[in-house]
Amino acid sequence: MPQRVRIALDAMGGDVGASVVVPGAAISLSRHPETEFLLIGDSAQIEPQLANHARLKAVSRVIHTDVTVSMHDKPSQALRRGRKSSSMWLAIDAVKKGEADVAVSAGNTGALMAMARFNLHTLPGIDRPAIAGVWPTTRGDSIVLDLGATIGGDAHHLAALAVMGSAMASVLFNLKRPTVGLLNIGVEEMKGHEEIREAAEILRAMNLPQLEYVGFVEGDGIGRGAADVIVTEGYSGNIALKAAEGTARQLTDILRSAMAQSWRSRIGYLFARNAFHALREKLDPRKSNGGVLLGLRGVVVKSHGGTDAEGFAYAVDVGYEMVHYHLLTKINQMLNRDGGALASAPAAQEAIS
Amino acid sequence: MPQRVRIALDAMGGDVGASVVVPGAAISLSRHPETEFLLIGDSAQIEPQLANHARLKAVSRVIHTDVTVSMHDKPSQALRRGRKSSSMWLAIDAVKKGEADVAVSAGNTGALMAMARFNLHTLPGIDRPAIAGVWPTTRGDSIVLDLGATIGGDAHHLAALAVMGSAMASVLFNLKRPTVGLLNIGVEEMKGHEEIREAAEILRAMNLPQLEYVGFVEGDGIGRGAADVIVTEGYSGNIALKAAEGTARQLTDILRSAMAQSWRSRIGYLFARNAFHALREKLDPRKSNGGVLLGLRGVVVKSHGGTDAEGFAYAVDVGYEMVHYHLLTKINQMLNRDGGALASAPAAQEAIS
Repeated sequence: MPQRVRIALDAMGGDVGASVVVPGAAISLSRHPETEFLLIGDSAQIEPQLANHARLKAVSRVIHTDVTVSMHDKPSQALRRGRKSSSMWLAIDAVKKGEADVAVSAGNTGALMAMARFNLHTLPGIDRPAIAGVWPTTRGDSIVLDLGATIGGDAHHLAALAVMGSAMASVLFNLKRPTVGLLNIGVEEMKGHEEIREAAEILRAMNLPQLEYVGFVEGDGIGRGAADVIVTEGYSGNIALKAAEGTARQLTDILRSAMAQSWRSRIGYLFARNAFHALREKLDPRKSNGGVLLGLRGVVVKSHGGTDAEGFAYAVDVGYEMVHYHLLTKINQMLNRDGGALASAPAAQEAIS
Repeated sequence: MPQRVRIALDAMGGDVGASVVVPGAAISLSRHPETEFLLIGDSAQIEPQLANHARLKAVSRVIHTDVTVSMHDKPSQALRRGRKSSSMWLAIDAVKKGEADVAVSAGNTGALMAMARFNLHTLPGIDRPAIAGVWPTTRGDSIVLDLGATIGGDAHHLAALAVMGSAMASVLFNLKRPTVGLLNIGVEEMKGHEEIREAAEILRAMNLPQLEYVGFVEGDGIGRGAADVIVTEGYSGNIALKAAEGTARQLTDILRSAMAQSWRSRIGYLFARNAFHALREKLDPRKSNGGVLLGLRGVVVKSHGGTDAEGFAYAVDVGYEMVHYHLLTKINQMLNRDGGALASAPAAQEAIS
């Protein structure tokens, strides 16, 4: 019996809003027919889009609001202006009220974080939330977190990220015991910030059945797929992500202009068109769209603001998977079972230092 | 009248040693004929190499030692075992004694940092050294620092990095007033670590004639060439560098296998061979070889350990440029002139917070 998954969509989020969100939902629905949607936003914009997607319309309910969080609002402004009324808030609120299992928004990241935290609150044992994303590697996909939700953090914060990230990896990649690495500037024991070395000790001491701690991973280890889950605090996670994205864009630009530089290279391009097509497919950033806000009493997925319907559909897929495979239950089980371990870890850590 | 530049080479450094270092020096000499070399290491390995390079031999002096710092030595081990005797130490010591203007080593980074700091000491006003490197961007080259010498640091450390990095950029790129950005996870004023926001205030308040502070730069701004100099502490700088290097390697691997996947793509590759050749040239990591240790009373250049003679020659070139255009004098002038500004900055900063 297929499980029904109810997804609340902020139909006004992102650079474009309903004209990306609604067709994106339709694409995801074709992959997961047991989904139902709440489409939240300006019904005058949603309904005409919905008219083009009969199957989606049949499983959707539109909740009208004309309050929208802008892409430029600061989190505090968004909370002041959009609390209890904006499409973003109402999507999150549907999760809180149990009317939806997950909320997906392509809106302003800071506002989404603030509203999700304010409305849903953090899980017991979690002080601050994180954003986790899928990173395509040579070996397959990995989960990297935190991509920028929380700057800094102590060893326990990093250990909690490891627990939550491995729950997400087990859900998304169907892994029994994902490997987990801590991002660091060297693989040697004595390198890096003290909190990273402490987190390594905690993870080693916990020796969890749900994750296998494999040690430090350097920046170039992420793309090599050195671990299924790469853990770091939000500042360096964001820097790593954007440095990698920027490099990928830079290289594809160079490649494009190299292939256009002479008649010979243009002929070469024509011959190798399928290869270039496969390359583009492989590098398609839309396929890794969908960052998951972790550490909250509810599942919220952040889509890139500038994506198209195909890209938004991937973010909806991520939301679907998180619910379908019980991400929150898994995280809670690990935190409760091992909340003990997390809590008792300071002793182990003191013994070492 | 060309200025004579005297370069001390750790001939044992790197994965290979003299068989890369000596031919590398010969290549650099062909570009800068007014160079003289001290080649320090096992003369039984250096002399046979030197026999193949008559011009280099004519301007070189060999200093024999059979003590070598291994690539795996911890800094403390290297200092204990190799102080006053190893090729790495003696190269740095030649700078200290005024027998050379710059030392270049492809050896173990941690050991090189430790020995350079221990022997040369830091400049007045500088607590902790940095490694600065050239980062190829869409717009040309930028300087990024710190690439991993010093983890963390307060606002004054970041401001000092900005001063030293812009001195290096003015020397290497012949710029009067390089633009300087602080690496951050957003371009908005209120984002990021407190010390980064404070450093921004200091740099704005200093308003130096030798550098133009342009604000925060995100991870993807580095490769876009958002500033001539990108400043961050050593942990995130190292993560950014390696994430970018890893992505570049990953993409070229994917491209290579895409071009080999069918007879059509292989024909395409043959037609576009020149374009691929140009691409490879452009992405050649050897051309950005040569990290400069900044903040010391002497110039030391770190080459990649795994590079070849061509790559090592680029690191020697960097050393040459640093001396030829008076890097140390420029840094000292800025620190002295503006050491006052740096020192008085806390007041400005208190006024703001």
